[in-house]
Amino acid sequence: MPTYRAPVKDTQFVLDAVVGLNNFSNLPGFAEATPDTVAAILEEGAKFCENVLAPINLSGDQEGCTRHDDASVTTPAGFKAAYDAFVEAGWGTLAADPAYGGQGLPHVVATAIAEYLSSANMAFSMYPGLNEGAQAAITAVGSDAQKRIYLPRMVEGRWTGTMNLTEPQCGTDLGLIRTRAEPQADGTYKITGTKIFISAGEHDLSDNIIHLVLAKTTGAPDSVKGISLFIVPKFLVEADGSLGARNAVKCGSIEHKMGIHANATCVMNYDGATGYLIGEEMKGLRAMFIMMNAARLGVGVQGLAQGEVAYQNAAIYARDRVQGKALGIVANAEPIPEPASKADPIIVHADVRRMLMDGRAFNEGARALILWGALHVDLAHQAATADERQVADDLIGLLTPVIKGYCTDQGYAVATSAQQVYGGHGYITEWGMEQFVRDARIAQIYEGTNGIQAMDLVGRKLGMNGGRALRAWLALLAQDIADAKGDERLAALAGGLEKATGELQAATMWLMQNGLAKPDNAGAAATAYLHLMGIVALGRMWLVMAKASHAALDAGAGDRAFYDAKLITARYFAERFLPDAGALRRKLEAGAEALMALPAEAF
Amino acid sequence: MPTYRAPVKDTQFVLDAVVGLNNFSNLPGFAEATPDTVAAILEEGAKFCENVLAPINLSGDQEGCTRHDDASVTTPAGFKAAYDAFVEAGWGTLAADPAYGGQGLPHVVATAIAEYLSSANMAFSMYPGLNEGAQAAITAVGSDAQKRIYLPRMVEGRWTGTMNLTEPQCGTDLGLIRTRAEPQADGTYKITGTKIFISAGEHDLSDNIIHLVLAKTTGAPDSVKGISLFIVPKFLVEADGSLGARNAVKCGSIEHKMGIHANATCVMNYDGATGYLIGEEMKGLRAMFIMMNAARLGVGVQGLAQGEVAYQNAAIYARDRVQGKALGIVANAEPIPEPASKADPIIVHADVRRMLMDGRAFNEGARALILWGALHVDLAHQAATADERQVADDLIGLLTPVIKGYCTDQGYAVATSAQQVYGGHGYITEWGMEQFVRDARIAQIYEGTNGIQAMDLVGRKLGMNGGRALRAWLALLAQDIADAKGDERLAALAGGLEKATGELQAATMWLMQNGLAKPDNAGAAATAYLHLMGIVALGRMWLVMAKASHAALDAGAGDRAFYDAKLITARYFAERFLPDAGALRRKLEAGAEALMALPAEAF
Repeated sequence: MPTYRAPVKDTQFVLDAVVGLNNFSNLPGFAEATPDTVAAILEEGAKFCENVLAPINLSGDQEGCTRHDDASVTTPAGFKAAYDAFVEAGWGTLAADPAYGGQGLPHVVATAIAEYLSSANMAFSMYPGLNEGAQAAITAVGSDAQKRIYLPRMVEGRWTGTMNLTEPQCGTDLGLIRTRAEPQADGTYKITGTKIFISAGEHDLSDNIIHLVLAKTTGAPDSVKGISLFIVPKFLVEADGSLGARNAVKCGSIEHKMGIHANATCVMNYDGATGYLIGEEMKGLRAMFIMMNAARLGVGVQGLAQGEVAYQNAAIYARDRVQGKALGIVANAEPIPEPASKADPIIVHADVRRMLMDGRAFNEGARALILWGALHVDLAHQAATADERQVADDLIGLLTPVIKGYCTDQGYAVATSAQQVYGGHGYITEWGMEQFVRDARIAQIYEGTNGIQAMDLVGRKLGMNGGRALRAWLALLAQDIADAKGDERLAALAGGLEKATGELQAATMWLMQNGLAKPDNAGAAATAYLHLMGIVALGRMWLVMAKASHAALDAGAGDRAFYDAKLITARYFAERFLPDAGALRRKLEAGAEALMALPAEAF
Repeated sequence: MPTYRAPVKDTQFVLDAVVGLNNFSNLPGFAEATPDTVAAILEEGAKFCENVLAPINLSGDQEGCTRHDDASVTTPAGFKAAYDAFVEAGWGTLAADPAYGGQGLPHVVATAIAEYLSSANMAFSMYPGLNEGAQAAITAVGSDAQKRIYLPRMVEGRWTGTMNLTEPQCGTDLGLIRTRAEPQADGTYKITGTKIFISAGEHDLSDNIIHLVLAKTTGAPDSVKGISLFIVPKFLVEADGSLGARNAVKCGSIEHKMGIHANATCVMNYDGATGYLIGEEMKGLRAMFIMMNAARLGVGVQGLAQGEVAYQNAAIYARDRVQGKALGIVANAEPIPEPASKADPIIVHADVRRMLMDGRAFNEGARALILWGALHVDLAHQAATADERQVADDLIGLLTPVIKGYCTDQGYAVATSAQQVYGGHGYITEWGMEQFVRDARIAQIYEGTNGIQAMDLVGRKLGMNGGRALRAWLALLAQDIADAKGDERLAALAGGLEKATGELQAATMWLMQNGLAKPDNAGAAATAYLHLMGIVALGRMWLVMAKASHAALDAGAGDRAFYDAKLITARYFAERFLPDAGALRRKLEAGAEALMALPAEAF
């Protein structure tokens, strides 16, 4: 069975060296996030994830969720007890508003814990994850009364939430929604329709489930302009907050799917269910996008999380599994001597190390990018000046699709490579590696496929406010590169990053010159551009981490091996990841012509 | 449910344009492979695969194999009937020796059919696939008596075969084998040990199962030098060929695994089973490698086959699924007009086409490479002169690890992209796309992981006979490029291939200068080098196909759309695949230093 150790020391390093958490203690929420508090949270979170969640990950995948004839759904053995412990410890309350029972800590701290939860048990972590998404929407557009009724119990975790967007005929293109909301005399609505792919739509973990549902009100335009958002509780809520009648919403079936078996993916049937408008009528998409942007960062975390846990197990296996002799030994003598041991651990083989180093270089770089991104979510709300808030908002807006798209594509690749380290055993269920691959796969698909992320990046984010966000990001890169060049120990990495950034700038220029007049050029370039952005973003994080590692070593840090490993991995990133930047630029500059040339019937 | 249409026209095109099948009609076997015969075989094979095998692929995955208390194994519903039909039609006899009931056709024809079988039902196709591997070993090293007893029934398909290499402690490194063979007074051996991952080790399809088992004879060296190969039939065979007593070999369990659920992956327990030495004592590995080289080409076919069937379904979905408007339409007007239709088929979106074109460019290129490779298997045995046989043997030896490694890595990538086209539906079992991904995954792992393929390429094949094979391959590339430059319509593709070939030559030079003295440099470069070889090899196939397409169009071919599509896809390959060559070279030239720097305990 696979194991998991939360990378607390790595998280701490990123919080110190990249996020600079201590620089923000003047801001609300950050004041409480003292080094001691953060250390305690990470340590306790690590224990919970390692000891409670990880042990039921493989069994949860095997058992899956069960829908009963009465439309109720049971989660796998151990999940209810683990969820009760989760609520008891308050793991869902970290970054929530103290007004509703939250601890009011920065998102960056909650994001660090989110990684551990997802590594230990991705399917489990989605129940509280969806709950947080629903809370975000209620917080953003709910009335005071709605907040007062729903948020305290959702924050605590006794109630959970869901997001209901997709319908059979309608995924990315929400204008096609058919679910109807018929206004009633008492101000409520009757919601009727079928929603699919509703994660955590029905289960036995919480007392109530608060569905947030997109629907079109009677007479509204049959397009995205006619969509409103509704709260539809599984159990109606009395004025005193107690549970009332069962609402007319039921789980019609649960999907059989590639992975995340322990999370119930439900078809939800709304049959004249009582719903409450939340936010303004026909402004439902806006609320949904608030929720979705936060969710997209969370999905990026899942890519990292599966890459991390898969890497950890591959590293253990590579140190343990004895097979073949190190090349160096065999090749240096003729005839081949009878070796002292019959075989070496496979970690002696360079090609096995390549797979492990790919994992390290991505995981550690992605953790830095994600926590740095989460800091900017905080700063976008909490920074002292309007200018600082705007810059933070620009940067995280630009990088959200990159974090979601690049980190999930690479997380899947890392999980696949980690499985490969096991040879045939990696294909066998009991070793757990194939589950990491199957679970990681969904993160590339949901919350907007990675193709949609790429279109969001090139079609919306690049051009917003005259390209202000990209300019801020490039300025940051230029500054970091210029600073690093002063230190000859960083020159190679800084030079590689400068070259990759040059490819990014050239690709951006190409997009400006070719994408506006002919949008298919933007579409044809989008995924390559997103990956190019991802490589440069991780390169920048490695530069920052390398700089901090040299500083720590110069200051006589006790744990030299830790910082040496960072410097070696930074070099590996420069040597093995950055070269793709040039190839990606060449690919995207090929444009849309060959792509769009074939008639549809030729496929 | 997914569908499958065998790409008969594409196969024909490759057989004509790339393989030049008609040029070899003077050779044994090829004489019978007249255009009419080949066309009939492809058409009939297509029908069988489409109508018999494809319909039980998804259900076979769902049901899987069942081991009963008496150690017998039942295949999923429909498999026995399909196998009987397979035997009845003689699909396993195409390339087998007429002396044993085969049709004696070229391997290249059988390989074309192997693709169809694997696309339609990979798990099913492995039963006859393993059987052919076992036949190859018996053919290569069996005595006349052994051939006479086993081959006719195995060729017919009434008996099947298996390959037993792996043990719990022993995968790649066969020196670690513990299975023992104790000589008996009657010349037989008692075989005792446990073999794992035995595909088709036990099932209900055939009357007898002929296990080929690696074991060490009493007193033999406890290393690769002490390994012998044995025939261990499930039922002992009487002198008249009838079945005798049940042998002491049983299926201990079947593995639960990521995919190919309908193929029984068995733990086989040998408990003093009667075995017959095949070939010379302690020369067992040699026989196994004969079998394995053929098997590796077959695994490359599986990579292509899963890429092809996944692509086909993605293309159908992309033409059918209506979601979002084409960018061109939305962007050209302000305010956005209410469009005539609410949404377009998603094939209008450039990023969806990117995934489909990646699939086409790989699948069609890989089919050409694989059939061209299969031709060289034939030529290595059948070509008229010793020189021609040697060149063919050199080329297929060099390219076998490339076909296995590159085609399975890319086949998996294409299957994953095809799944992505489906959005959330791709993750749901009933659509069948996630099965293609899970099935494709094993091909990167078995018959020598792709890392082992890469080591075989750089550590063995490159240097054999002073690099003779690579020189022959580079000369072929240079000739094709020089020829193509005379036609300005081919200049861009030829130029791109020339550049990529230059990267390959430089990478080879780097390997010669750095890999011999320090083998870890070769190990660190191996996978990147294999991919670089793969890209160049597919590039060469696209150049040949583009040339043939122009020739067909110049000659007034009726089906212009077919050849136009080839030319567009060739251009796409040049624009979107060839640029990786430079990045791969840069990565491999980074060498082993950063890779090997960390102590094992740092992972």
